[in-house]
Amino acid sequence: MVNAGAMSGSGNLMDFLDEPFPDVGTYEDFHTIDWLREKSRDTDRHRKITSKSKESIWEFIKSLLDAWSGWVVMLLIGLLAGTLAGVIDLAVDWMTDLKEGVCLSAFWYSHEQCCWTSNETTFEDRDKCPLWQKWSELLVNQSEICLFWMFHGASAYILNYLMYILWALLFAFLAVSLVRVFAPYACGSGIPEIKTILSGFIIRGYLGKWTLLIKTVTLVLVVSSGLSLGKEGPLVHVACCCGNFFSSLFSKYSKNEGKRREVLSAAAAAGVSVAFGAPIGGVLFSLEEVSYYFPLKTLWRSFFAALVAAFTLRSINPFGNSRLVLFYVEYHTPWYMAELFPFILLGVFGGLWGTLFIRCNIAWCRRRKTTRLGKYPVLEVIVVTAITAIIAYPNPYTRQSTSELISELFNDCGALESSQLCDYINDPNMTRPVDDIPDRPAGVGVYTAMWQLALALIFKIVVTIFTFGMKIPSGLFIPSMAVGAIAGRMVGIGVEQLAYHHHDWIIFRNWCRPGADCVTPGLYAMVGAAACLGGVTRMTVSLVVIMFELTGGLEYIVPLMAAAVTSKWVADAFGKEGIYEAHIHLNGYPFLDVKDEFTHRTLATDVMRPRRGEPPLSVLTQDSMTVEDVETLIKETDYNGFPVVVSRDSERLIGFAQRRELILAIKNARQRQEGIVSNSIMYFTEEPPELPANSPHPLKLRRILNLSPFTVTDHTPMETVVDIFRKLGLRQCLVTRSGRLLGIITKKDVLRHMAQMANQDPESIMFN
Amino acid sequence: MVNAGAMSGSGNLMDFLDEPFPDVGTYEDFHTIDWLREKSRDTDRHRKITSKSKESIWEFIKSLLDAWSGWVVMLLIGLLAGTLAGVIDLAVDWMTDLKEGVCLSAFWYSHEQCCWTSNETTFEDRDKCPLWQKWSELLVNQSEICLFWMFHGASAYILNYLMYILWALLFAFLAVSLVRVFAPYACGSGIPEIKTILSGFIIRGYLGKWTLLIKTVTLVLVVSSGLSLGKEGPLVHVACCCGNFFSSLFSKYSKNEGKRREVLSAAAAAGVSVAFGAPIGGVLFSLEEVSYYFPLKTLWRSFFAALVAAFTLRSINPFGNSRLVLFYVEYHTPWYMAELFPFILLGVFGGLWGTLFIRCNIAWCRRRKTTRLGKYPVLEVIVVTAITAIIAYPNPYTRQSTSELISELFNDCGALESSQLCDYINDPNMTRPVDDIPDRPAGVGVYTAMWQLALALIFKIVVTIFTFGMKIPSGLFIPSMAVGAIAGRMVGIGVEQLAYHHHDWIIFRNWCRPGADCVTPGLYAMVGAAACLGGVTRMTVSLVVIMFELTGGLEYIVPLMAAAVTSKWVADAFGKEGIYEAHIHLNGYPFLDVKDEFTHRTLATDVMRPRRGEPPLSVLTQDSMTVEDVETLIKETDYNGFPVVVSRDSERLIGFAQRRELILAIKNARQRQEGIVSNSIMYFTEEPPELPANSPHPLKLRRILNLSPFTVTDHTPMETVVDIFRKLGLRQCLVTRSGRLLGIITKKDVLRHMAQMANQDPESIMFN
Repeated sequence: MVNAGAMSGSGNLMDFLDEPFPDVGTYEDFHTIDWLREKSRDTDRHRKITSKSKESIWEFIKSLLDAWSGWVVMLLIGLLAGTLAGVIDLAVDWMTDLKEGVCLSAFWYSHEQCCWTSNETTFEDRDKCPLWQKWSELLVNQSEICLFWMFHGASAYILNYLMYILWALLFAFLAVSLVRVFAPYACGSGIPEIKTILSGFIIRGYLGKWTLLIKTVTLVLVVSSGLSLGKEGPLVHVACCCGNFFSSLFSKYSKNEGKRREVLSAAAAAGVSVAFGAPIGGVLFSLEEVSYYFPLKTLWRSFFAALVAAFTLRSINPFGNSRLVLFYVEYHTPWYMAELFPFILLGVFGGLWGTLFIRCNIAWCRRRKTTRLGKYPVLEVIVVTAITAIIAYPNPYTRQSTSELISELFNDCGALESSQLCDYINDPNMTRPVDDIPDRPAGVGVYTAMWQLALALIFKIVVTIFTFGMKIPSGLFIPSMAVGAIAGRMVGIGVEQLAYHHHDWIIFRNWCRPGADCVTPGLYAMVGAAACLGGVTRMTVSLVVIMFELTGGLEYIVPLMAAAVTSKWVADAFGKEGIYEAHIHLNGYPFLDVKDEFTHRTLATDVMRPRRGEPPLSVLTQDSMTVEDVETLIKETDYNGFPVVVSRDSERLIGFAQRRELILAIKNARQRQEGIVSNSIMYFTEEPPELPANSPHPLKLRRILNLSPFTVTDHTPMETVVDIFRKLGLRQCLVTRSGRLLGIITKKDVLRHMAQMANQDPESIMFN
Repeated sequence: MVNAGAMSGSGNLMDFLDEPFPDVGTYEDFHTIDWLREKSRDTDRHRKITSKSKESIWEFIKSLLDAWSGWVVMLLIGLLAGTLAGVIDLAVDWMTDLKEGVCLSAFWYSHEQCCWTSNETTFEDRDKCPLWQKWSELLVNQSEICLFWMFHGASAYILNYLMYILWALLFAFLAVSLVRVFAPYACGSGIPEIKTILSGFIIRGYLGKWTLLIKTVTLVLVVSSGLSLGKEGPLVHVACCCGNFFSSLFSKYSKNEGKRREVLSAAAAAGVSVAFGAPIGGVLFSLEEVSYYFPLKTLWRSFFAALVAAFTLRSINPFGNSRLVLFYVEYHTPWYMAELFPFILLGVFGGLWGTLFIRCNIAWCRRRKTTRLGKYPVLEVIVVTAITAIIAYPNPYTRQSTSELISELFNDCGALESSQLCDYINDPNMTRPVDDIPDRPAGVGVYTAMWQLALALIFKIVVTIFTFGMKIPSGLFIPSMAVGAIAGRMVGIGVEQLAYHHHDWIIFRNWCRPGADCVTPGLYAMVGAAACLGGVTRMTVSLVVIMFELTGGLEYIVPLMAAAVTSKWVADAFGKEGIYEAHIHLNGYPFLDVKDEFTHRTLATDVMRPRRGEPPLSVLTQDSMTVEDVETLIKETDYNGFPVVVSRDSERLIGFAQRRELILAIKNARQRQEGIVSNSIMYFTEEPPELPANSPHPLKLRRILNLSPFTVTDHTPMETVVDIFRKLGLRQCLVTRSGRLLGIITKKDVLRHMAQMANQDPESIMFN
C-alpha cells in the first residue's frame, strides 16, 4: 500500500465533530483533493445557511449575499481580466515599437498612437510621420556619432538592428530575472498546470498574487522582446490567478477546494475570451480543454464572466478599432468545393506540425530537465532571444510582431491595401467596386513575399520548439497559428495564381472564370492557422468556434472544420497526446484525463496494494489496539490513512481513518482528556464496552472515522474503477472480497497502472 | 425491496459466458439501462475488433469502417434532418396560405411563390398579384353563388373566414386522427421523453420509423392549421427519430443502448440547428437541456451533425433568402445603459409568464389525465382548433402564422417597410440614408397595431396553455417567443414614443437627442422573446447563443443575457422546474436530473429496502440452495435480481444475479445438462465441493454471477448516493455494514425518496 490518501467516500465526518480541529478539511501541497468530500462540505455549509436564514432578517440578507457571491466573483474576474488584457495589449504595443524607435511628442506613445496625434499626415503615409523617430534618426541627428558612420544608409540599418537586439535582450533579461526572483510559477503557458489543478490537485502559490503580478509584467516584456511566443495561453493563467484572488475574498469559495475550481473554470473561459475576443469560444475552450468538473451552473457563470471580460476589453479598446476580436477579417467571396482539397492538405500539414512540435519540444524539455542545461535558465533565455532577434530582424515578416503578421496574412487584399503581399498587377481597365477585386497575376512584391515567408516559416518552426518551455511566460497559440498562417497563405497564393494562369483546367473551369474573384488567400491562411493550432493542442469544437467568432460568418466554418478534423486525425495517428497533456506527463502530475479511454482487461485485484508477496495492509482494529500500537504504526509508515476493521481475523471493513486526524486526535486526547495513557485502548465502536475498574480510560475515536469509505470488489474491471475515480473524483478506494478487506487502490496506483498499460514508465507519476 | 434492477456494477459477466444466451444484454420496455454495463460491453466489442484487425486486411478494413461509422451516422442524420426540416417548411408555407386562397397557375405554389412567378407585379404590390386568388374571389367568380350574397364586401370576408376555419378544422382533424391511429407517440413536443430516454430509459417505438413519418406529416398539418404551437420542439423529436433509424443500421450503435444515446444527443443538436438555423446553439442546447451523458467526443460529432443539417437546410432554401436562420434581423443602432431597465422588466414578465404557463398547463394536463376529458382527444383538438380559428381570424396579428408574426415584430422599421407597425409620421424634410431613420411620432397604424397586439397577447397566452399537451405534435418555442415578442414590441414602442415626446427628461437627455435613432422596438421584441422562452424552458447559455446566432452580433448579447438571467431568477423563485421537467414528473418517468441538488441529511440506511419491519431481503446463498428453492423464490417475487451471499448467517455479499439470466440458466440446464433435478444444489462458488456419489448433479452458476456489484455502506449520506447514481448511471446499489449485506437501493427508491423530501407524492415515480 502506498500512502493512502485522506478520508474518502464522503464527509458525514462533520456530523460527529463538535469542535473541528484546526486544519481539518485542508490539504497538503502537491496532494489531490477529494471531490465528493468537498461537495458534501459545501452542501453542509449550504444547509447551515439555509436553516439560519429563517432566524433573522440579518441572516436572511447574509444568505442572499452568499447566493449572489458567485455572480459577484464572476463580475470581478471579468472586469479584472479584461482590464489586464487591455493593459497588456497597450504595453506590448508600445514596447514592441520601442525596439524600433520612439515618439518625440510623448515617449509612451506607440508608433500608431504617435502618428494619430500628429495632424499633418494623410491617409497614405500614416506610417511616416515626423514625430516618430527611428533610433538611427534619433541617435544620429542628436549626437555627433554620424561622423563615425561613412555609409549612411547601411549604418542606419545596422544601428537600428543593434538597438532592436539590445532592447530584445534587455526585455528578455528583465523578464527571466523577475520570474526567477519573485515568482518561479509564472513561467510557461500555465495551461498544463491549470488543467491539473482543475482536476483536483493542489499546487500552492501557482495562482497566487505574486504570480499574477509577475506574470502580467513579464508577459509584456517577453512578447515585446520578439521571442516566438504568444500571450494567449499565459492570459488564461493570469485570468485564473484573478479567479483565485477573488475567490479568496468569499468564504464560500476560499474554504472549499471544489467550489474554488468552479470559479477557476469560469476564469479560464474569461481568459480565452479576452485573448481572442471570443466569449463563446472561451467557454467551450474551458469546457473542452481545461475543465474537469463542469456543472451546468458553471457554464452559465463562465459565459457571464467571459462576456464581462470581453466587453471590458472592448471599452479599453486596445486595438483602436472598437473591434472585440484579435484578428478581424471580412471576406467577400465564397469558397468552392474544389478548394476542400488544399484545405485538407493544410490539415495534414497542421497535424504533421503538431506531431513534430510535440515530439521535439518534449525531447528538448526532457533534456533541459535532466542535463546541465536546466541550470542556466537566464543564459538560455538570453541566447535564444539573441538568436531570435538576430535572425528575425532582416526579414520583415519575422521582424514585426507575430500577431501583426497573422493579421496581415489573414487579410484579403482590398483596393487600398499597401502590403507587399497585395502587390498584384492591376488591370488598367478595371473599374470595379472596391470590395470585389478579381484574381490578378502576382507582381514582384508577392514573389519576394513568398521567399520571405518561406524563410519565416522555417525560422518560426525551429525557434518555437526551443522557446516553449523556457523559464519565461510563453504561449503557444500565436506561434502555432503563425506557422499555419504562413503555410496557408503560401498555398493560397499558389492556388490563386494557378487558377489565374490556368483557368481552362477542368478543376478551375467550373468556378473560376477570368475576371472573377475566386480564391481568397487570406482564407487559406486562416484555415492553416486553425489546422496548426489543432495539431498542437488537439482542440476541436472550441477551435472552430473561436475561428468562427473571428470571421463572424457560418460561411467559412466548413473549411475550418475540414482542416481541424484532418489535423486532429493526422496528429492522433502519431500520438494521442496534445502538447498540454504531454507537458503534464513530463512533469509527473497526477492527471486522470477524461478523454483517455482505458480498454485493458485488468481487474482491481491486479492493481491494488499490497501485491502478492508484499507485507499485509496496515489496518486498525475497532476495539483492540492501544494508543501506543497506533502511534507505532503511524511512526513506522507514511500512509495518508488506515482502514479500520472489526478484527484482524474477520477483516470486515467498518471505516477509514485519516493519518492527519488520528495524530491530532491522539495529541488532543493526551493533553486534555484525563486517564489517557499509552495502553489505553482505542475504540472506533459506537459505545465502548464496560471495562474492569482498574483498566486505563478508553479513547473513543468514532467521530474521526469515515463510515462510508468507497469500496469495490476485487473482481471489478479496472475500466470501471478508472471510471469511478474519474467521475467521482476519488483519492482512494478500498478493495474487498465477500465483505473482507483485501487492499487499497489510490489515484496514484490507477495512474501508474495506466502508464504501465500504455508502455510508459509508471514511476513518472510522482504525486499523490 | 422493490424489484431490484438488472445486473449492476459492471459486466465482467461476458468474460464467463462462452455462449451468451439469446436476449442477454437487452432491456425490457419502460426499464432503465445500466450505463456502466453498456460502456463495458462497448469496450469489450472494441477490444475484440482491435485484436481481430491485426489478423487480416479484411478485418483491418472492417475495423476502420467501424471507427468511421460514427461520422457516417452523423452525416446521414444531418442530411435527413436538414431535408425533413426543409420539406416541412415548404409544406407549411403552402398549406398556411391554402387557408386563405389558392394559386391559379399551380395549386402547389404558396402565395409568395405564386406571385414570384407572375412577372407583372412590381415591388410595391408584390402581395397583390392576379394569379393568387382568395377563396372569396375564386368561389364567387367561378360559380353563381354571388347571387346569394347581397353585401359583397362583408360576404367575401365571411366566406374567407369560413374557408379559413374549415381548412383549419380539416388539417387538425387529419393530424389528430393520424396520430391516434398510426403513432400515438408522435404527439407533444417530445422533448420530455427524449430527455428521459437520453438519461437511460427505454420507451420502445418512441423513436421508431412510424413515429418519424407520422410526426413529420402531422407536424405540417397542425402548424398549418393555425393552432398556437411551433415546429421547433417536434423537429428535435424528428431529428432524434432519424438518429435512431440510422443508428439501427450500424451494429456498434444498434446493439448498445449507451452508444445509441450518444447518437441521439447529436441528433437533438441537429434538430435545434435546423429549427433555428443555429448550429452552435443547437449543440449547446443538446448539452445543456437534453443530454445526460455527453462525452467530449460526442460534442464534436454533434457539432458536425448540426452543421451538416444546417447546410442541407440552406441548400433547400425554404425561406427563399439564402439565410440560414429562421428570423434574420439586422439592427442599426446600439442600445443604451438606461434601456437595461425595460429589458429587465421584460425579463420579469418572461419569468412570470413561464410560471403561469407551467402551472396552468400542468394543472390542465393533470385534469386531462384524470378526468373524462382525456377520453375525447379528437374532440378536444377540434374544439380548440375551432376556437383558435374563430378568434384568430379577425385580428391580423393572430391570423398570420406565428413565425411570420415574430419575424415582423423583430424587424426594425426601415424606409421601405409597409407594415402597419411601421406607420410612423415622417418628417417631410427628412433626407437621410435609408438605414438610419430617426425616432418619429407614431401614426394611426401604430396605435391600431398596439390594440391588436394587446388582444393577440391575451389570446396567445390563454390558448397556448390549452394547446400544449393535446394529442398532436406541438412545440412550445414559437408560441412562447410570440408572447414575449408581442409584449416586447409593445414596451419598445412605448419607450420609443416616450423618448420622442420627452427627450428632455433626465434619463433620455444623455442618449436621445431629437432627430436621433435611439430606440429599436424590434430589439425589445427579441429581448422579450428570449425572456419568455427562458421563463418556460429555463434554458440559459443555449438560449442566448441561439439568439446571438439570429442577430449575428455580440452587440446585443448583453440585453439578451440580462433578460434571460432575470427571467430565470423570477421563474425559479416560484418553482424550480421548467416545463419539460414538469411534464416528465407528470408522466412519472424515472428521470434523475443532473441539475437538481439534493441537500437533505438522510443516509443510505433511511432509503434502502427492506425498511424496518418489512420481511428480510430475498437473497441467494452461494452453495446451499436447490434449484427448486430458487424457482420458488423467482415465482414468489418480482424483483429484477437477487444478491448472492456466502450464507444466510454471515450475509457476506459475493455478487448479484439477474432474475432474467437465472431463469434462462435454469431452463437451459434442465433441458441440456444431464442430472439436473429439482433438488440439485446451485453453486455460485468457483468450484463445487466433492459431493457424495448418490447426491444429484450440482448446477454451476458462477458464470451468470456479477462479481462486482456496486456497494455503499449504510452510513453513506444520500447526497453521495444520489451523486453516484447520477454520475455512474446505476440501476441499483447494495447496502452493507461491516461487510454484511443489509439491503438494496434502486433508482426508483432514490427518485421516490427525492420526491418525498421535496414534499411530492413518491408514488408519482412509476417506472423502474
